[in-house]
Amino acid sequence: MTPTPRIDAGALWRDLMHSATIGATPEGGLNRQTLTPDDAVIRAWFAETATSMGGVVQTDSLGSQFAIFPGAEPLPPIAMGSHLDTQPTGGRFDGVLGVLAGLAAIRALRAAGIATRHPLAVINWTNEEGARFAPAMLASGVHAGVFTPAYALARTDAAGTSLAEALAQTGQTGAMAAGAQSLAAYFELHIEQGPILEQEGFDIGVVTGVQGIAWFDVSVTGSPSHAGTTPMHLRRDPVVAAAAMIQAIHALATADAGARATVGRIAVEPGSRNTVAATVRFTVDLRHPDAQQLAALESALQDALPPPAGAQDCAVTIEKIWHSAPVTFDAACVQAVEHAATSLGARHRRIVSGAGHDAVYLARTCPTAMIFTPCLGGISHHPAEFITPEQAALGANVLLHAVLGYDVLDTRVTKA
Amino acid sequence: MTPTPRIDAGALWRDLMHSATIGATPEGGLNRQTLTPDDAVIRAWFAETATSMGGVVQTDSLGSQFAIFPGAEPLPPIAMGSHLDTQPTGGRFDGVLGVLAGLAAIRALRAAGIATRHPLAVINWTNEEGARFAPAMLASGVHAGVFTPAYALARTDAAGTSLAEALAQTGQTGAMAAGAQSLAAYFELHIEQGPILEQEGFDIGVVTGVQGIAWFDVSVTGSPSHAGTTPMHLRRDPVVAAAAMIQAIHALATADAGARATVGRIAVEPGSRNTVAATVRFTVDLRHPDAQQLAALESALQDALPPPAGAQDCAVTIEKIWHSAPVTFDAACVQAVEHAATSLGARHRRIVSGAGHDAVYLARTCPTAMIFTPCLGGISHHPAEFITPEQAALGANVLLHAVLGYDVLDTRVTKA
Repeated sequence: MTPTPRIDAGALWRDLMHSATIGATPEGGLNRQTLTPDDAVIRAWFAETATSMGGVVQTDSLGSQFAIFPGAEPLPPIAMGSHLDTQPTGGRFDGVLGVLAGLAAIRALRAAGIATRHPLAVINWTNEEGARFAPAMLASGVHAGVFTPAYALARTDAAGTSLAEALAQTGQTGAMAAGAQSLAAYFELHIEQGPILEQEGFDIGVVTGVQGIAWFDVSVTGSPSHAGTTPMHLRRDPVVAAAAMIQAIHALATADAGARATVGRIAVEPGSRNTVAATVRFTVDLRHPDAQQLAALESALQDALPPPAGAQDCAVTIEKIWHSAPVTFDAACVQAVEHAATSLGARHRRIVSGAGHDAVYLARTCPTAMIFTPCLGGISHHPAEFITPEQAALGANVLLHAVLGYDVLDTRVTKA
Repeated sequence: MTPTPRIDAGALWRDLMHSATIGATPEGGLNRQTLTPDDAVIRAWFAETATSMGGVVQTDSLGSQFAIFPGAEPLPPIAMGSHLDTQPTGGRFDGVLGVLAGLAAIRALRAAGIATRHPLAVINWTNEEGARFAPAMLASGVHAGVFTPAYALARTDAAGTSLAEALAQTGQTGAMAAGAQSLAAYFELHIEQGPILEQEGFDIGVVTGVQGIAWFDVSVTGSPSHAGTTPMHLRRDPVVAAAAMIQAIHALATADAGARATVGRIAVEPGSRNTVAATVRFTVDLRHPDAQQLAALESALQDALPPPAGAQDCAVTIEKIWHSAPVTFDAACVQAVEHAATSLGARHRRIVSGAGHDAVYLARTCPTAMIFTPCLGGISHHPAEFITPEQAALGANVLLHAVLGYDVLDTRVTKA
């Protein structure tokens, strides 16, 4: 009987802590923005480590690294992956966990002497964070045909350096065309970046999809006037109108457990303490995992805004500036994750991702699912971001066994 | 029988329109900040005009100009005045009207051949606006002993130039000690800078005092989190808490016709559209003409803030950063204004000033009152600030006849 493979928890934690030294910040986090010298160091380490495990590392024209490990049959690889770049004030686990867990899964299979039907791939996607080059998930987006390579290569950072230049400067421009590597499936392990699993006492989130997102800019225009000389009943105060609208928007989302509504930015003009404001501009971020319910939420937003503003006789404009449709992950991939979690004795629940990930774009090209581990206090993009070695290992074990389960179950594959 | 003196409406309007050419902006307003070259030009014109009417112009150490016209008895002068400096985006009438109406009153008395018991003074106070040197009403404050001359002379503008240097550069440093000129009474004509008189169809506001003002900085701290991954019920969102507080503050003031409450500035951190905010800071400007009721309003503010914030479990701090007690003008001066308005057939009402004026400080040193004229739409500190020639003349006539009435009535005076 073949031994049941298990992640080497100590080795995975050592890899995570090694990564945490490359671009480390005084606050204990990471600042390893994409295609910086520090990013080049971790990329070289990734390629060396994968090669030492018997992988062949190919880099595409966007710099994404594909470490391919052979399988028993001539099939496209089942991929594991995420990203090694971070936010400027990032933590040590966001993205990094998904890539290093992929290497840990390979290590476990080698230790157990198990060969899979499919080749396996461990992928490091370039510029997931979008912190240096906007938009986020740029290389996985090109892989999936959402962006053209020319568009992506022309993106510039704050200093005016293009992605193409940054790739050349760090020697990361690969020979493989972006999107050329077909995949049988894609599994991404990631920290939750939210508080649900921790609050509810779960070890693993079986991610069934990603919320749809709609972004709005709202502008409320009243009449600027003197704070001392203008009686309350003669004011057209957009601050008071906006306050009522913000409460109405909050109420919209609290009525539906799947909904999220956030006003994260408010700008008041002229912004003088003794002047009734002329204009208030604020943002609205609406999310829902269901496309129809997101649309209903958008309608409710439009309906909710005029009446409370009317109390101050302000003019309100609402502009929708961005939309990202909900993503539903592949049922077989989700089941593979769920079965793996069950077989490992993990307390798990199905969950919808509230954040974007490379898996959002990969889902357009191949069967895809994600696995979440809880993270301390739900904190992310912050030096305090933390998971325990046990949480990292359990997440990696679920990743490993989801891949193994899918490797056996997958009868949809075509030859590579 | 002595002819009843009347303002020469055409001459007053010509003076106002002449002033409007000195520091004129392309938008049709004035940018004549204190002690700039343009301010020096209007100051020279003021001194020449007053001298040509038989006045003696003295300048104090803060640059305030006192044009003194002789009276029949050896008494301190009854003063009329305001300021000739403007905001950077100021209008043509704020302050200017009160000074030029003083000259127009002198002109009317000379035309009618009337000598008053008291000498009369027309005063141009330095740096009323506070736009170049903070705080506002600086020279009248020194005159009243609120600020020391040394404090005032050391104030600097954005370029680092001190008031003392600006006085020297424009040749406006006077020999007279600030506060040395005692006054029998002070009358200030000013545009309302608010909408009440226009909205209610009055020609004249008989100003009985100035609102008290209390300024607060409020800070609401929640917990920053991801807009997608954090369920509504697990959020501590200071934006939602602040919105409830802003509505509660608004409700406080609408319950009392004399009260004003304004939130004019809001700052959200980090201010990212897809992040539940960490902190919201906002300002509160509370005003009331009655000191006790202002204190009650402040107590109500303190009481109103914690409960709505509690809904989001945020921490709230309230810091009082400034207080200006209400001012009640002299009853005899107010009656003189009211009688003048009645005798001129003006539709008038008593009103409390919502804005600060030089008269606030003068009231500490001598019997004082103010006269308001309506202004178009209540607009001020803006190029669109406007009054008609008829409104200017009526206001100046009320000023003239209030001074004449007080000149006869005043039995409280001591010899100069």
